[in-house]
Amino acid sequence: MPDSVAVIIGAGDATGGAIAKRFAREGYTVCVTRRSEDALAPLVQEIEAAGGKARPFGCDARDEEQMVALFDTIEKEVGPVEVVVFNIGANVFFSIRETTARVYRKVWEMAAFAGFLAGREAARVMVPRNKGTIIFTGATASLRGGKGFSAFSGAKFALRALAQSMARELGPEGIHVVHPIIDGAIDTAFIRDNFPAKYAQKEQGGILNPEHIADTYWMLHQQPRDAWTHEIDLRPWMETF
Amino acid sequence: MPDSVAVIIGAGDATGGAIAKRFAREGYTVCVTRRSEDALAPLVQEIEAAGGKARPFGCDARDEEQMVALFDTIEKEVGPVEVVVFNIGANVFFSIRETTARVYRKVWEMAAFAGFLAGREAARVMVPRNKGTIIFTGATASLRGGKGFSAFSGAKFALRALAQSMARELGPEGIHVVHPIIDGAIDTAFIRDNFPAKYAQKEQGGILNPEHIADTYWMLHQQPRDAWTHEIDLRPWMETF
Amino acid sequence: MPDSVAVIIGAGDATGGAIAKRFAREGYTVCVTRRSEDALAPLVQEIEAAGGKARPFGCDARDEEQMVALFDTIEKEVGPVEVVVFNIGANVFFSIRETTARVYRKVWEMAAFAGFLAGREAARVMVPRNKGTIIFTGATASLRGGKGFSAFSGAKFALRALAQSMARELGPEGIHVVHPIIDGAIDTAFIRDNFPAKYAQKEQGGILNPEHIADTYWMLHQQPRDAWTHEIDLRPWMETF
Amino acid sequence: MPDSVAVIIGAGDATGGAIAKRFAREGYTVCVTRRSEDALAPLVQEIEAAGGKARPFGCDARDEEQMVALFDTIEKEVGPVEVVVFNIGANVFFSIRETTARVYRKVWEMAAFAGFLAGREAARVMVPRNKGTIIFTGATASLRGGKGFSAFSGAKFALRALAQSMARELGPEGIHVVHPIIDGAIDTAFIRDNFPAKYAQKEQGGILNPEHIADTYWMLHQQPRDAWTHEIDLRPWMETF
Repeated sequence: MPDSVAVIIGAGDATGGAIAKRFAREGYTVCVTRRSEDALAPLVQEIEAAGGKARPFGCDARDEEQMVALFDTIEKEVGPVEVVVFNIGANVFFSIRETTARVYRKVWEMAAFAGFLAGREAARVMVPRNKGTIIFTGATASLRGGKGFSAFSGAKFALRALAQSMARELGPEGIHVVHPIIDGAIDTAFIRDNFPAKYAQKEQGGILNPEHIADTYWMLHQQPRDAWTHEIDLRPWMETF
Repeated sequence: MPDSVAVIIGAGDATGGAIAKRFAREGYTVCVTRRSEDALAPLVQEIEAAGGKARPFGCDARDEEQMVALFDTIEKEVGPVEVVVFNIGANVFFSIRETTARVYRKVWEMAAFAGFLAGREAARVMVPRNKGTIIFTGATASLRGGKGFSAFSGAKFALRALAQSMARELGPEGIHVVHPIIDGAIDTAFIRDNFPAKYAQKEQGGILNPEHIADTYWMLHQQPRDAWTHEIDLRPWMETF
Repeated sequence: MPDSVAVIIGAGDATGGAIAKRFAREGYTVCVTRRSEDALAPLVQEIEAAGGKARPFGCDARDEEQMVALFDTIEKEVGPVEVVVFNIGANVFFSIRETTARVYRKVWEMAAFAGFLAGREAARVMVPRNKGTIIFTGATASLRGGKGFSAFSGAKFALRALAQSMARELGPEGIHVVHPIIDGAIDTAFIRDNFPAKYAQKEQGGILNPEHIADTYWMLHQQPRDAWTHEIDLRPWMETF
Repeated sequence: MPDSVAVIIGAGDATGGAIAKRFAREGYTVCVTRRSEDALAPLVQEIEAAGGKARPFGCDARDEEQMVALFDTIEKEVGPVEVVVFNIGANVFFSIRETTARVYRKVWEMAAFAGFLAGREAARVMVPRNKGTIIFTGATASLRGGKGFSAFSGAKFALRALAQSMARELGPEGIHVVHPIIDGAIDTAFIRDNFPAKYAQKEQGGILNPEHIADTYWMLHQQPRDAWTHEIDLRPWMETF
């Protein structure tokens, strides 16, 4: 019997890594992707050292051919895809007049178009089996177009529209589509290096622990189908909202 | 050392009962309320038969004096309140011209004013300890004022405003305020008797199992404070939304 | 032929007065209400001095009998009600633990229950004619339950639910139900006396001119029925949102 | 003194045409664009025959260079741009598995990326003058990701994020950014030919008259800056929502 497979598109950051480790711990073979396969080696080693199974895939998630091939390869060589997590963000901040067309397009390609490709390919393999979970990671900018966030919130709003549309179409097909909204800083090197005052709140729970995000994603995948969640927010207790 | 206490305001239906049983199973002494204390006897017996601890309280949740006394009594006689679940609904359907002032007021008193009293009294005992979880049960009508639902959605919108306002004030005090949104029919005698076609979908997961709602409430209470949820929806996989 | 009639429930502040004057200027007989009929004398005199027609009605809008009688009297003595504006607010700010049951209830009675009575009575006289406009004045707190606003946002959320529910039921009956959202300080004695820094922005358009709100209400009433608005926000150009 | 200029990006349909005619009637020189300049001839002739001034511009709104050149040319040859209306849509309906990458990208380029270019170029010329109105036409799909609308709602959600972000940044600079939401069928050849049952409701006001949309856009541009609207919905009286 083939393994159960979870695919984490965008396993390059703390959150993607924690999600991969969580599903590996539960016995899933986790297929992790980022642009450079080499960069996935530490994560794969960590999972294997803990007794889990992981497979790295170098893949540009914005490239349709590569994404189609990714799912084909996994289905053929690893096993049936049961969970897909799309976790690529592209947070940038520019005043509208300083937002270049290149930036606006690139942010959308990374955070929305790649999500569309991931979601569509997930649907392609899951619908015939009437089974599977697809999770698109959302953010504060998914709900609010803040000053300076025309590109990032544009992409995140689009991803939310995708999640809603797919949930409405695929729910009755037995596919669970979820859009968690992470509202707050996450414990990452980026926050540590760039927002030290925020990072200093870590000890008191002022920034999100990626492992707790991963616990939530696991819980969402475990939900019985009479009580599915489509949207759930996660934020530190002291975060203003 | 006193027991941990969970208070379920409105334990008269399937959902309130399932939540009480869930917290009792985790070792909480559950204080369950409804207007008639006698009517709580079967629930208390069921919990005790399973080895749990339950205390019934007859209480009109719309009465300020009774609610103040309820929390005073529980804190004094049972233990520190750690969880409060407000679970009173009052779903009615009338065209606007046929909605009497009495109905409009009563629905608000049950589903919003009583929620305010429960939330305020919970805050009163929890804030000095900087600890606790308060959960207000929401519904589809919390987000949408549908035709014929002026009274019910008015009350549920008000309850959602309360939950938001309390979350913003009390989160930084260490109190976790949550507003789950139950979007779909629940497996109850009411649905069985009045909506047989809907009830027939039970076998395939088309109506919500109260135990799964209770699992979600338990999960929400367990969330670490760096990753708190304020709003989460729950609906059957085949439910249109 | 009887006059066209506009009823302004809550004509005690700058906004209600400006709306009354605007509709009077367009030829409507404006029936203005507040709790004390005497207090309406200056407004009525101002309208009459400008050549308009106004009728003052002392009425406690929270009292069902008085509201039923108000509409009966106007329909019988003045003419068919074509426009109803509900404009009663009750902005208060208290931490949750300091919000008394009396305050919570009173704010709801003024800003939501009275709105229900006004809306229902408007529907009663308008539906048989399949004609009329009902406008419920909303606020920032209609959309967001801010810290300290459990009572006020509870009432305003409830009023918004009412407006939505009535729009969905009565639109196909030919009744136009609108919920404008006023998001910002209005040029009133209250703001002048209590928020002088904010009031100082008046010269540069930093606070709302009640006449411009009134222009919007008139525009909404004039909309052809193929292009009706249900919700519109109004805020000063420099207001943060 | 140079003329006041209104730029209508996407004047190829009934709505864009009606908006152009409305602003021309008010004395604006309207610069209308669509991909083919020739196709604009009838609109320009109609405006000129009515005594208005119009200038056609063939322009692919998805092309950054063409959009930069468009604003440069208009500012130099016609006059200072006071109003920009972005009116390009791209409504398509496909199940997620049948949505090609080409369609998903193209719809975004037309309805969101082109909107970004229009908005940014409008900001570029307006901000130094601290004056101007920018209107992005929204739709039902701007608020809801319906089944089969992953591409269209993705683009419309993104456009809404852009409008919000720009309003928050540019409002305090004196630029009025608006996002009207057209919720219903519009009186167009497309509706007439493809949805005859819907079109048959025209006589009773069941579909939107483009002239009434144009009246709304003109009203929005005329708003005094103490009472600006950011979002307004327009729908026929009998439309379900």
